[in-house]
Amino acid sequence: MELLNTLDRIVDPLHSALLVIDPQKGFCSSKSALVLNFGFDTARIKAAIPRLNEFIKDCRKFKIAVFWTREIYTKDKMLPNQKARGLDKNGNLWVCREDNPEIEWYDKVEKPIEGEPVVTKWAYDAFQDTDLNLQLQSKGIKTLLFTGFTSQCCVVSTAMRGYHLGYYIVAVSDCIDC
Amino acid sequence: MELLNTLDRIVDPLHSALLVIDPQKGFCSSKSALVLNFGFDTARIKAAIPRLNEFIKDCRKFKIAVFWTREIYTKDKMLPNQKARGLDKNGNLWVCREDNPEIEWYDKVEKPIEGEPVVTKWAYDAFQDTDLNLQLQSKGIKTLLFTGFTSQCCVVSTAMRGYHLGYYIVAVSDCIDC
Amino acid sequence: MELLNTLDRIVDPLHSALLVIDPQKGFCSSKSALVLNFGFDTARIKAAIPRLNEFIKDCRKFKIAVFWTREIYTKDKMLPNQKARGLDKNGNLWVCREDNPEIEWYDKVEKPIEGEPVVTKWAYDAFQDTDLNLQLQSKGIKTLLFTGFTSQCCVVSTAMRGYHLGYYIVAVSDCIDC
Amino acid sequence: MELLNTLDRIVDPLHSALLVIDPQKGFCSSKSALVLNFGFDTARIKAAIPRLNEFIKDCRKFKIAVFWTREIYTKDKMLPNQKARGLDKNGNLWVCREDNPEIEWYDKVEKPIEGEPVVTKWAYDAFQDTDLNLQLQSKGIKTLLFTGFTSQCCVVSTAMRGYHLGYYIVAVSDCIDC
Repeated sequence: MELLNTLDRIVDPLHSALLVIDPQKGFCSSKSALVLNFGFDTARIKAAIPRLNEFIKDCRKFKIAVFWTREIYTKDKMLPNQKARGLDKNGNLWVCREDNPEIEWYDKVEKPIEGEPVVTKWAYDAFQDTDLNLQLQSKGIKTLLFTGFTSQCCVVSTAMRGYHLGYYIVAVSDCIDC
Repeated sequence: MELLNTLDRIVDPLHSALLVIDPQKGFCSSKSALVLNFGFDTARIKAAIPRLNEFIKDCRKFKIAVFWTREIYTKDKMLPNQKARGLDKNGNLWVCREDNPEIEWYDKVEKPIEGEPVVTKWAYDAFQDTDLNLQLQSKGIKTLLFTGFTSQCCVVSTAMRGYHLGYYIVAVSDCIDC
Repeated sequence: MELLNTLDRIVDPLHSALLVIDPQKGFCSSKSALVLNFGFDTARIKAAIPRLNEFIKDCRKFKIAVFWTREIYTKDKMLPNQKARGLDKNGNLWVCREDNPEIEWYDKVEKPIEGEPVVTKWAYDAFQDTDLNLQLQSKGIKTLLFTGFTSQCCVVSTAMRGYHLGYYIVAVSDCIDC
Repeated sequence: MELLNTLDRIVDPLHSALLVIDPQKGFCSSKSALVLNFGFDTARIKAAIPRLNEFIKDCRKFKIAVFWTREIYTKDKMLPNQKARGLDKNGNLWVCREDNPEIEWYDKVEKPIEGEPVVTKWAYDAFQDTDLNLQLQSKGIKTLLFTGFTSQCCVVSTAMRGYHLGYYIVAVSDCIDC
């Protein structure tokens, strides 16, 4: 890969992809388990959504590839250390369970359109145990534009992993929050 | 993980999984592209199938977890070096294309039953860009019993990768061929 | 691996390792390139060092394995996206260069003693392109106790990666800073 | 990465690297543990060495990057499944032990010269838990020319892994044996 030194070259639409991380009810809705059980406040996420929607539409206009990720937890695809965090006292998953509406797209966020890949992820990092890297490499992507939720968890772990895989990383900071 | 020193302990059904690698028409049928265009001979594979079917049934009897893999090639999930091998002069995939009956299970092989995971793979190595490792770890699997096709390609590359990931590897040699 | 549900079981010295991330002059010294060229403030790091030293000594007392990492940048081991960040206008590395005293241990931090592995890392994430995971697996480690610098970069990216590799992660928060 | 369709373009010296896999006493010498304890026959390897030496010199002439790998086994860097294979009844390593002359370069093979990286590997696959991929990426390498020993173990597992990492793979078949 060549060395890209300026922002203009880094974000060239020919080799850039937008990642929309986990815009699901589980993270955006005021009725999610995170809100009801843990006092999570979705105010900042809700404020970011209109900006995110504009940015998604702008990327489409510039023919930037748009990738969506969504979190689904299922006991068949969890390591013991994840289970220790993600199961309650009765052994039930308490967030983004595969049979719960929490995993659906949040209604106020743009939806994937035809040709925009949706990668289901089993952990914070969207590269872990998925084909995201393969799909990006297959398209010749060099730069990842990060948006979505939540900042300190799925966004940062995916961005860090992407950086170590060799991608140029751009955080679209007003479209990321927690 | 503990050190397993004897075959008995290695193949303990409690922590062993059977892998049935790619028992698809593309590798077993006499009408596959490999046969028609490259003179591939399926005689040894066909001879192994009855033994493979017996072994799958035996594993189920002993409650050994059974995992199936199948190869599907699609241009959206191929690296350039794969494309250079897998596309013909017109840019078409010549084997295990997603819209071709080649990707179906070969009719004379046992089929997956409920609860037996099917992992779709995009390359020879079934661990590459899939959630196979996650599913195996999630079940506490330590040992992989290898069966399927073809020996020198998908079986060996998956077995080698599994070994380096820490699994005990057992080649069920009369149920593997090419 | 078994499911560890309580902090007591998670931090069992028999399967825990302390990671001391990058306690080098480049991150702790007031004369580092980060301080001189970028206005980085080492006050919080300096304040954490006495606590870190106590914690290292406590871990040794409890026979917890101690692992050290150190950052060394060299042009032979950098991806293009790292070079775009880590090289100045003249193509020279501006931090933790292999021939610069910045890579030495900071004098006020405890030093590795015999038997404590030192892993040289080429990027933020200490697992990337190193044998850290192999060494930890070889020792049967399940839990990583994180300490060191800097929080938002090398510590978080290594902790996130460790989590996705299956380790139980404990942030020793008063021994981490930036 | 671009799609390289012809052998000429694949082996362009500008982006090709020669890998010389494990030309060590442990695999080439008639006095190795493999020969003395397991009846391993080194005749074919010995016959390949003059061809290998010529090929190394040719690569240097064409400015192809030359990388060397060497196997070293040490109990601190072995997974349980490796230990189960690599330790004898007394718990001692029986091949390529770090304190044994077996790990030295075999005298009749060319030696690394200045600027040719030597990657120490802990398992068959030279990419596993090493910085080989990082060094190759750092140099912009796209194609790997494989030579060395032994075919069915370290060469094939490294070649398979390299293929799945995206490299174009060329087996220099008369310089590979077992």
